[in-house]
Amino acid sequence: MTSLAIHGGAGALPRAEMTPERAETFHGALREALGVGQGVLAAGGSSLDAVEATVAWLEDCPLFNAGRGSAFTREGVNEMEASIMDGATRRAGAAFLLRRVRNPVHLARRVMEHTPLVALAGEAAERFAVEQGLKLEPVEYFFTRERYEAMLRLRGTDQTALSEDVVVKLPATDQEASGTVGAVAVDARGNLAASTSSGGTTNKFAGRVGQAAIIGAGVYAHNATCAISCTGYGEAFLRLAAAHEVSALIEHRGFELERAAAIVIDRLREVDGRGGMVGVDREGRVALSFNTEGMYRGWIGPDGRPHTAIYAEAREWPRAQR
Amino acid sequence: MTSLAIHGGAGALPRAEMTPERAETFHGALREALGVGQGVLAAGGSSLDAVEATVAWLEDCPLFNAGRGSAFTREGVNEMEASIMDGATRRAGAAFLLRRVRNPVHLARRVMEHTPLVALAGEAAERFAVEQGLKLEPVEYFFTRERYEAMLRLRGTDQTALSEDVVVKLPATDQEASGTVGAVAVDARGNLAASTSSGGTTNKFAGRVGQAAIIGAGVYAHNATCAISCTGYGEAFLRLAAAHEVSALIEHRGFELERAAAIVIDRLREVDGRGGMVGVDREGRVALSFNTEGMYRGWIGPDGRPHTAIYAEAREWPRAQR
Repeated sequence: MTSLAIHGGAGALPRAEMTPERAETFHGALREALGVGQGVLAAGGSSLDAVEATVAWLEDCPLFNAGRGSAFTREGVNEMEASIMDGATRRAGAAFLLRRVRNPVHLARRVMEHTPLVALAGEAAERFAVEQGLKLEPVEYFFTRERYEAMLRLRGTDQTALSEDVVVKLPATDQEASGTVGAVAVDARGNLAASTSSGGTTNKFAGRVGQAAIIGAGVYAHNATCAISCTGYGEAFLRLAAAHEVSALIEHRGFELERAAAIVIDRLREVDGRGGMVGVDREGRVALSFNTEGMYRGWIGPDGRPHTAIYAEAREWPRAQR
Repeated sequence: MTSLAIHGGAGALPRAEMTPERAETFHGALREALGVGQGVLAAGGSSLDAVEATVAWLEDCPLFNAGRGSAFTREGVNEMEASIMDGATRRAGAAFLLRRVRNPVHLARRVMEHTPLVALAGEAAERFAVEQGLKLEPVEYFFTRERYEAMLRLRGTDQTALSEDVVVKLPATDQEASGTVGAVAVDARGNLAASTSSGGTTNKFAGRVGQAAIIGAGVYAHNATCAISCTGYGEAFLRLAAAHEVSALIEHRGFELERAAAIVIDRLREVDGRGGMVGVDREGRVALSFNTEGMYRGWIGPDGRPHTAIYAEAREWPRAQR
């Protein structure tokens, strides 16, 4: 019995702007990402390997705002961040203020497993990536025209934006980036893992660190409770320690995962927060909760059937065959 | 009715190495720091102003490992971090990977109040400090010979250290730095605030970010529960989301502050963690919990009498007269 849930950001295009063709592109990408993680789990792999591989695939896909396709700061550069956590040991790794690491999630895992640290940032983190033999890319690799233009439209203002706020002003294209990515999984041994990766918000301050980098805010995993990955306005998730709060509600109040996740998403209003989260627990139950119009997401529960969704209604795909 | 609690790090010198003169120096410094915060509170100031002023004083004091007197990374530089949180609004600010900002706590508060962000890091954070008119210092300002030599002794090894692990090998001096600093307070209006600041662990990796920078790990404040500031091996506090976990135990289990803090410190063992924390709640109760031999600490409860301590026994001072 395994479960996997993923998100491609709570900054989904408003439904009024979504064409059938564009929706198709996102459903297909989410389905493909699910296949990556499911392949690891079906082969007896660990939840940690499954979430890392899935998030790396999402980072490589320019549709999503992480890795290739990241948002631009108001200084015109990408600053990426990622985190990963192992529910069995509560070891965790995070890497942030990255400009050239192709897959921030791989670096987060190396920090977790090859250093005594949890969080490593900036140039020193990229030097460590080189030492570890991870792939760096020239800054052009991360560039997408739509994301850069989105930043130019906001530059000179104090506004930042999830993609939904920006994309409506842009010409339609299949290449629009669309928010933080993340994955959570439980493997056949009952171990939980979570990972989150982000290219940040468009026109953000250079040097800004968001929830995707912060253990307890945008990511948490604990075998006794759940694995959680968040997306949305990171500051609200930081102030609530949102991912850890879901775990705390399960541990200390005895709530089920879905209820705990819904409560925390509801509380985002207390701090003007918008966004969402995906979670799994040890019984393979899945939670997908958000207070935005849409959240790109997908999941494969214990029945092995992949589902993808953008707004309320979900699409069920044929059982995974890898 | 107000309360204030502070710490100067859980990396206190082992009792066997502590001379009466050195202990006197620390008791005096802790007493003076308490006076700074108490002065703000007694004049009707906010808990936020009280913890900021107290932590800034501790940063300026070279006895403590924060601001002036910070530890050195294995690359031979200081990298400082600080955070602050307002329990009334749960607004929070953090600044990290700082090399020249005289008072990281002032920058953390500017991030909280003058940006939409929670966390700002690195060169961009220092540019923001300049924009805000905060004082920067040449790197020499932060230098202390003892801290630099402590790093040299560990460089080339994979060891990092709280000061207690290092100081025993060093010649006795009054100038030894001794861990993270922090302050928590409740003001006359019943508002809570917390702040933590650190120069990091000796011989740490450059680019390492610790608990002092992370909302939920090394600092948390929520009027409904408590204000917490932590010290110790930051990675353990990050993995447990330790400061937020104390708040969660109070909110979801109904525990009193002191019991909640003791439980979380006890759980540090699950992740090989050592350290401590100070806390206050809305009734003015104080918690001071640690699993190291000592923790430099001080507090003024509702009775207005200052107390300072390094190991188990506490010293009571005459009632504050500012």
